[in-house]
Amino acid sequence: MPLWRNDRGEENAMKQTLSLVTLAVADMDRACRFYCDGLGWEPAMRTDEVTFFQMNGMVFGLYLQSAFEEELGSKMDPSAHGIALAHNVAAKDEVDAVMDLAQKSGAKILKSPVEREWGGYSGYFTDPDGHAWEVAWNPFWTISSEGYISVAPQ
Amino acid sequence: MPLWRNDRGEENAMKQTLSLVTLAVADMDRACRFYCDGLGWEPAMRTDEVTFFQMNGMVFGLYLQSAFEEELGSKMDPSAHGIALAHNVAAKDEVDAVMDLAQKSGAKILKSPVEREWGGYSGYFTDPDGHAWEVAWNPFWTISSEGYISVAPQ
Repeated sequence: MPLWRNDRGEENAMKQTLSLVTLAVADMDRACRFYCDGLGWEPAMRTDEVTFFQMNGMVFGLYLQSAFEEELGSKMDPSAHGIALAHNVAAKDEVDAVMDLAQKSGAKILKSPVEREWGGYSGYFTDPDGHAWEVAWNPFWTISSEGYISVAPQ
Repeated sequence: MPLWRNDRGEENAMKQTLSLVTLAVADMDRACRFYCDGLGWEPAMRTDEVTFFQMNGMVFGLYLQSAFEEELGSKMDPSAHGIALAHNVAAKDEVDAVMDLAQKSGAKILKSPVEREWGGYSGYFTDPDGHAWEVAWNPFWTISSEGYISVAPQ
């Protein structure tokens, strides 16, 4: 499928958005004492394994490292840095299209897209420096036309 | 100075925004072949050392690792992961206030705030898992009341 049309008129670009930054954490209670109690941030969603904060048009997440490794399907590669950037798309089949584009552009496929337990569909690639990006379709999150993302449906 | 008043009515919270995600890259040309040519992204600013992309209300940056290390004032700690999150503030003295709050909350000060060659003022802390955050005042970038940030002044 065609992807995003950029300002140069190219019709198969990855939309220039960053949806979610997720940090792997060793201890969720310790991380929340810092972010929630210390810095005063309010989680939009919190479980034992994951905490999401609604930020300025995007989402910041904390993910228990062991659960993160389960999602990646492998022990965390030190080159994956315990952090992931995410690019969310509005339609499920865009996930494969973006992953294909990334691979053609020189990305390494870290984890091919699969159906996720939480109801979405996502895969991971790493860029030429080894930084991990998730490409995800999440039917429960809202994305505006500008790419602003919200944890809760509007 | 008082910081942000959160929804719980606490008056000294760090505003819940993420301004900039910066990846350290070993080779800027290689990184740009991937992001600019491959994915089709348009840099808002590009030099040999740094490239910024205007994203959805925030900024994505590539920073040459050697220059990044110069800014941090030290060789990159493997725990700093070659990535930094940034929280930009609207007033210079908020930088110190946010750094103080982070330190009181259990952060380690990676680099105390200093005047930057590019005309701003910033410091770095690491959270309890070692993830690096920059707290920055950048008089050339625009921040909306919601925390949306723009590379170019409006």
